[in-house]
Amino acid sequence: MIIKLERIKLQTRKSEEAIDITAQVEDAVAKSGVRNGLGNVLTSHTSSGLLVTEGIPCLEEDILTHFSRLFPESEDYHHRRYLDYDGRLGFNADAHLKSVIGVISCTFPIENGKLVKGSRQTIYFMEYDGPLERIYFVQVLGE
Amino acid sequence: MIIKLERIKLQTRKSEEAIDITAQVEDAVAKSGVRNGLGNVLTSHTSSGLLVTEGIPCLEEDILTHFSRLFPESEDYHHRRYLDYDGRLGFNADAHLKSVIGVISCTFPIENGKLVKGSRQTIYFMEYDGPLERIYFVQVLGE
Amino acid sequence: MIIKLERIKLQTRKSEEAIDITAQVEDAVAKSGVRNGLGNVLTSHTSSGLLVTEGIPCLEEDILTHFSRLFPESEDYHHRRYLDYDGRLGFNADAHLKSVIGVISCTFPIENGKLVKGSRQTIYFMEYDGPLERIYFVQVLGE
Repeated sequence: MIIKLERIKLQTRKSEEAIDITAQVEDAVAKSGVRNGLGNVLTSHTSSGLLVTEGIPCLEEDILTHFSRLFPESEDYHHRRYLDYDGRLGFNADAHLKSVIGVISCTFPIENGKLVKGSRQTIYFMEYDGPLERIYFVQVLGE
Repeated sequence: MIIKLERIKLQTRKSEEAIDITAQVEDAVAKSGVRNGLGNVLTSHTSSGLLVTEGIPCLEEDILTHFSRLFPESEDYHHRRYLDYDGRLGFNADAHLKSVIGVISCTFPIENGKLVKGSRQTIYFMEYDGPLERIYFVQVLGE
Repeated sequence: MIIKLERIKLQTRKSEEAIDITAQVEDAVAKSGVRNGLGNVLTSHTSSGLLVTEGIPCLEEDILTHFSRLFPESEDYHHRRYLDYDGRLGFNADAHLKSVIGVISCTFPIENGKLVKGSRQTIYFMEYDGPLERIYFVQVLGE
């Protein structure tokens, strides 16, 4: 059995953005040497997401726009209070809620050394609270 | 280690519907010969979903109705524009958004040759943009 | 290959609550003897969830409050009718919908015998329809 874990760094540039990481995930699968198995992608942060949809800019905008419609920044959140452990006001409750409903991980099959997915499925790292340096995990397991 | 991947075809009949695929997934597990391990189910499309809930028609309707309440077809979506690569207007932004919040995959344990899940958990392929011929993946890994 | 499945019982105390199960999941990983592999956590119920976010009480409240804003108990649900098989009125459509959008499982890498996750990622069992005795699965697979 081959088991490989990669921690991949990512510098986001905006407060909110959808970053296509499909090539990086496919590269991690290729480097692992696994021919058949599973690949799991997971963000390591609670104000970001890991989401699979069609890879087109208008949809990226729609997801960010409509997540903000569901969870407006200006809502009255319990998290908007002084946080001792952070030494500042909690201002990103909307980012955490978007992370929760937009999902934080996905598992794909691997076959003949390649990630198996639909032709239109693009893997996105979702930044809801940037810009920040982010890390996501790609774990590959198989033989 | 046994690793088996099945691509299962499905013809959907309506613009939106919830199709119980529990028996097909359990059959793929049985055929794999895996006694203990994991099974992962994943749709291959970005306007469909893979969702687990109680298997009753009234709930299927509630999910479709309330997903449409959150993402009405008539909203003003960026995706509603001419798409060069498709040669047509993007008309299904709501379907993509439903796919994202309703989830596209689930991983279950396998024990003694059987998928482990709660007695009321039913596995659904969710069509948000049909009718279409669809494919979903069932990957089984274990020994 | 080591494959271990634990069914963990949990008595919830409120109609809705977020219960931190990170220590229980980490304990199941430690007991499994797996050094490197994957861990999958899954609720066995359709009116509960399994969700990962920052472990602070104000966020727990925000998630429960805003899920209830999206799916109010007083909405007109198809599920609110007499259910023969239950011998009672279906009253928890909102709980099922929260379960669906808040996710029911998550898969994490395991490395050097430990679950790999971000420093602020807390694993929650989400009760949307309690108080009840609940069971969730922790499956560990690796070597």
